[in-house]
Amino acid sequence: MRVAFAGLGVMGFPMAGHLARAGHEVTVFNRTPDKAERWAATYGGRVAQTVAEAAQGVEVFLLCVGADDDVRQVVGEALTALPTGAIVVDHTTASAEVARELAAKAADCDVGFLDAPVSGGQAGAENGQLTIMCGGEPATFDKVQPLLAPYTKAIRRMGDVGAGQLTKMVNQICIAGLVQGLAEALHFAKRAGLDPAGVYEAISKGAAQSWQMDNRWATMAEGKYDFGFAVDWMRKDLGLVLEEAARNGARLDATALIDGYYAEVQALGGRRWDTSSLLARLEPPK
Amino acid sequence: MRVAFAGLGVMGFPMAGHLARAGHEVTVFNRTPDKAERWAATYGGRVAQTVAEAAQGVEVFLLCVGADDDVRQVVGEALTALPTGAIVVDHTTASAEVARELAAKAADCDVGFLDAPVSGGQAGAENGQLTIMCGGEPATFDKVQPLLAPYTKAIRRMGDVGAGQLTKMVNQICIAGLVQGLAEALHFAKRAGLDPAGVYEAISKGAAQSWQMDNRWATMAEGKYDFGFAVDWMRKDLGLVLEEAARNGARLDATALIDGYYAEVQALGGRRWDTSSLLARLEPPK
Repeated sequence: MRVAFAGLGVMGFPMAGHLARAGHEVTVFNRTPDKAERWAATYGGRVAQTVAEAAQGVEVFLLCVGADDDVRQVVGEALTALPTGAIVVDHTTASAEVARELAAKAADCDVGFLDAPVSGGQAGAENGQLTIMCGGEPATFDKVQPLLAPYTKAIRRMGDVGAGQLTKMVNQICIAGLVQGLAEALHFAKRAGLDPAGVYEAISKGAAQSWQMDNRWATMAEGKYDFGFAVDWMRKDLGLVLEEAARNGARLDATALIDGYYAEVQALGGRRWDTSSLLARLEPPK
Repeated sequence: MRVAFAGLGVMGFPMAGHLARAGHEVTVFNRTPDKAERWAATYGGRVAQTVAEAAQGVEVFLLCVGADDDVRQVVGEALTALPTGAIVVDHTTASAEVARELAAKAADCDVGFLDAPVSGGQAGAENGQLTIMCGGEPATFDKVQPLLAPYTKAIRRMGDVGAGQLTKMVNQICIAGLVQGLAEALHFAKRAGLDPAGVYEAISKGAAQSWQMDNRWATMAEGKYDFGFAVDWMRKDLGLVLEEAARNGARLDATALIDGYYAEVQALGGRRWDTSSLLARLEPPK
């Protein structure tokens, strides 16, 4: 299949690579051109100089960029060049509103649109083990699903356009509360003179168990916060969550507070630390 | 072994039963005598009319009662009758302070003391699958461990007297943050028009995964809060947590707030609802 991929960050770079390795004809675009050149040298695809050039003649145009405004700009430009019947797949974590807005614009050009944010982090992108939450028409979803298989562990259509983004927001709300609980628990355990490794053995098989506890407790105990998904990105995602909650009337008391705690971590110099660094505002690293 | 068990609540009743079924000579005491009679009719052990009578001549005296003051009263009375060399095992979730206080009193009578709060709930007590977190002397722990095996999935000595209680507190801090995150996530999902079952399928294999999500998401989505560990008990435990944090200096911002949220659930009539009912203050049941 002839496809284009815009946005070669820590997620997009390996995702586009999986498509090339699966035998698709991939053209890439990146705002910083040297990253695109490095990608082409690694995977052997073509580099476009503009989004419109990348979009010409492709069946599917994929993107994974920064935030709403980047999505607007890239999709807007792609729509000037995409052929009728093409499909845009947006892997960016963005608002449900921008998904609806761009799906309508795409429909005016007889182009399909799927919001398809992912979870699984950099490791999931590299190992082809991402979870993809999609919003859009069932027929559009069905057409695109086989293409995404090389980097997919699980994929699901959650509803109409925007439903993928809303599901990703639910995921981030869960993680915020979970990690704050874990941070306070570990902080308390250390103050109480307990051995964190022993506590993990004692409580990790019961009702307190979580993926975060299984994967972050030990590194948090050492004050190591360099495992991927960064605080800056989490704050962007929680910003989307809180804006959407203001619209749909959901009361997110703890989530709003934890967003503020992440702001404290940023102020401590932790913009690139991973999400488990909520502990750092209780125990600033030396 | 000749043992006594005081406190035949939803936890103590089956725990004492496991000891009797394992062939131990069990005398039970309960403040409400008819429960003790029912226990004896079920398991065939002896009923004592007072704590002191239960304690006479036993090697191990176990208890699982309400809170600090109950523990103080029962252990105080048991110490008037326990033979030298006996061991007290307290399965109550209580403060680390009361554990230290009673361990010192027991030592004055040449009696050992182990704080041994459990997790795993009523189902764990009935199926003999409890996790036990112990604090006390290594020699005391070693002597008692085989006795507790019939109702134990995992048992661990966490440190000196009180360390079992402190570990249980860490467990409850984790659960508080986790369940609040889950409640806000589900509340948001419903407001956003998503299907809770589909959202569970999409996000439950990744970084948001937890035992609580695997076991409570579906019932929370239906507003069912009748799965064991009650809000009243959780508030008692969080009270212990916050008192201990005031002593050891741990900052438990979210935990303190969530304790207040549980108080709102109590005010809604949810004293006996399970801990997942934090959702009920966001979506009061009809």
